[in-house]
Amino acid sequence: MPLAIQADDVRAAADRIRPLAHRTPILTSAVFDAEAGFRVVFKCENLQRGGAFKIRGASNLILSLAPDALARGIVAYSSGNHAQAVAIAAKHVGAQAHIVMPEDAPRSKMEATRAYSPRIVTYNRFTESRETIAAAILKQTGGTLAPPFDHPMIMAGQGTAALELLDDVGPLDALITPVGGGGLLSGCATIARAMRPGIRVFGAEPVGANDTFLSLQAGERVTVPHPDTIADGLRARCPGELTFPVIRELVEGVVLVDDAEIRETVKFLLLHLKILVEPSGAVPAAAVLFHKLPPGIRSIGVVLSGGNIDFEELVGY
Amino acid sequence: MPLAIQADDVRAAADRIRPLAHRTPILTSAVFDAEAGFRVVFKCENLQRGGAFKIRGASNLILSLAPDALARGIVAYSSGNHAQAVAIAAKHVGAQAHIVMPEDAPRSKMEATRAYSPRIVTYNRFTESRETIAAAILKQTGGTLAPPFDHPMIMAGQGTAALELLDDVGPLDALITPVGGGGLLSGCATIARAMRPGIRVFGAEPVGANDTFLSLQAGERVTVPHPDTIADGLRARCPGELTFPVIRELVEGVVLVDDAEIRETVKFLLLHLKILVEPSGAVPAAAVLFHKLPPGIRSIGVVLSGGNIDFEELVGY
Repeated sequence: MPLAIQADDVRAAADRIRPLAHRTPILTSAVFDAEAGFRVVFKCENLQRGGAFKIRGASNLILSLAPDALARGIVAYSSGNHAQAVAIAAKHVGAQAHIVMPEDAPRSKMEATRAYSPRIVTYNRFTESRETIAAAILKQTGGTLAPPFDHPMIMAGQGTAALELLDDVGPLDALITPVGGGGLLSGCATIARAMRPGIRVFGAEPVGANDTFLSLQAGERVTVPHPDTIADGLRARCPGELTFPVIRELVEGVVLVDDAEIRETVKFLLLHLKILVEPSGAVPAAAVLFHKLPPGIRSIGVVLSGGNIDFEELVGY
Repeated sequence: MPLAIQADDVRAAADRIRPLAHRTPILTSAVFDAEAGFRVVFKCENLQRGGAFKIRGASNLILSLAPDALARGIVAYSSGNHAQAVAIAAKHVGAQAHIVMPEDAPRSKMEATRAYSPRIVTYNRFTESRETIAAAILKQTGGTLAPPFDHPMIMAGQGTAALELLDDVGPLDALITPVGGGGLLSGCATIARAMRPGIRVFGAEPVGANDTFLSLQAGERVTVPHPDTIADGLRARCPGELTFPVIRELVEGVVLVDDAEIRETVKFLLLHLKILVEPSGAVPAAAVLFHKLPPGIRSIGVVLSGGNIDFEELVGY
């Protein structure tokens, strides 16, 4: 079966999302390089509109819908960043968004989403299924589902982060992104391997939510029943049907970091790069900082995927 | 008497400092705009090399010195950011830096400076004079003093922050920067009024270190005996001999914020813009957020001048 997206889908997404997504800055840090042992360039999606890369995929999908589809509304389920992105993009085109969020989502993420006036439906992520709740709303409204990762338009949209990164910097040996359901990683791998055929692409996962790591080992999609990590955006239980084949084909490997390493990295990025990165967004930087990558890499692009974290959580680090 | 610098000095500085200073990104925030009531663009000097705008002035001065002057070394006194900037620029050209720092300077600033291997001399800022200590080192070495603000090359260098900001954005009604000794404000006012003759330029000071505010009221330089504010970079007791005439001529006014407003703004910038700004650097943003500016402004450029703050201090906010 052909892969769900090609590089041209990412290029088309880059044009489509321009009215909604910022071209985020690239930062470097001599202090980080010294710790890592090689050159690191950071793509700052924590400085993206809505505080995360998610606006890329959400706007790519929503801006491609016909007026009659938009009139029936958009439905999304998400722990936060995707929800906010869908709410922003829906509001931009005048469509009603219905957001299904876990009741224990970080307060900052829930409030930020609420600011774009979607309809919010909360659920208990230990006892209820967000997919079932979303399906009921879809049946009632006839709206369009904006899934968090497993959709070609979402995957292609997320890939624009790597497209911009590689457009803006010189040669790189490698690229690394976080992996939740695999939307960001699959999109970035697709465009990166097209733009720089020799580039090595990695994913980074928390040890407590290592579904993609296990899936690559097994050669098929593996489900982790109860993901447990502070990286709330990466608690997907299983890689996507569409994302996993792309990852298996184009990604060299997934490396793992633990929660202590993630916390340490959030602090390091805060104090040395002067930017706030949420735990999920800091996972690939943690992989670099704690030397989890295979040898032979002298330069790497790191996608810092989001910056939405509560102050109360940060001060505990 | 003519003013100490002209716009062409700032333009020359922009060319000179290119090997050492980053062109920092511009950020915007819909949430901040909503609170401010108008459009705000942020020049992120907290993301500058060394974590503050100070590298601009320090490298403008040091890169202009002849080899024989460089061989005798550079002397600087500073609460931190200027010290680090001088250490970075001196190391870049292979000159010895002698840094006179208060013994209670923020630990992060002292450690960051130490990383560039200058000779560090500490002093008690309540009982000793940094000027006297620096003078003794100068006498001994025959080196060059890099004063923190009151020097044409320093003032012109700092002005490049406004030059880049105005190069990168459309029309703005106003520009605001922090004021310590006035190096940044005088340099920025000089270039801003040349590039955009109608622009209104403001300084922002802590109420506990309001020497420039009082000096503008009095029409002459006034000394504040014991500045008291969390904004450690703005504890100058008196505006400079060279900076004050520029400020009096080109700046509409200085507005004041208190320490509680500064803390609140540091948190706001952290959580909504996802960037770490130190108290001194957040002062002009606090002036905008807490509506201290006169009416009639619908857009403003804000220089976020630095990001060097200890984690222990931040968590107390």
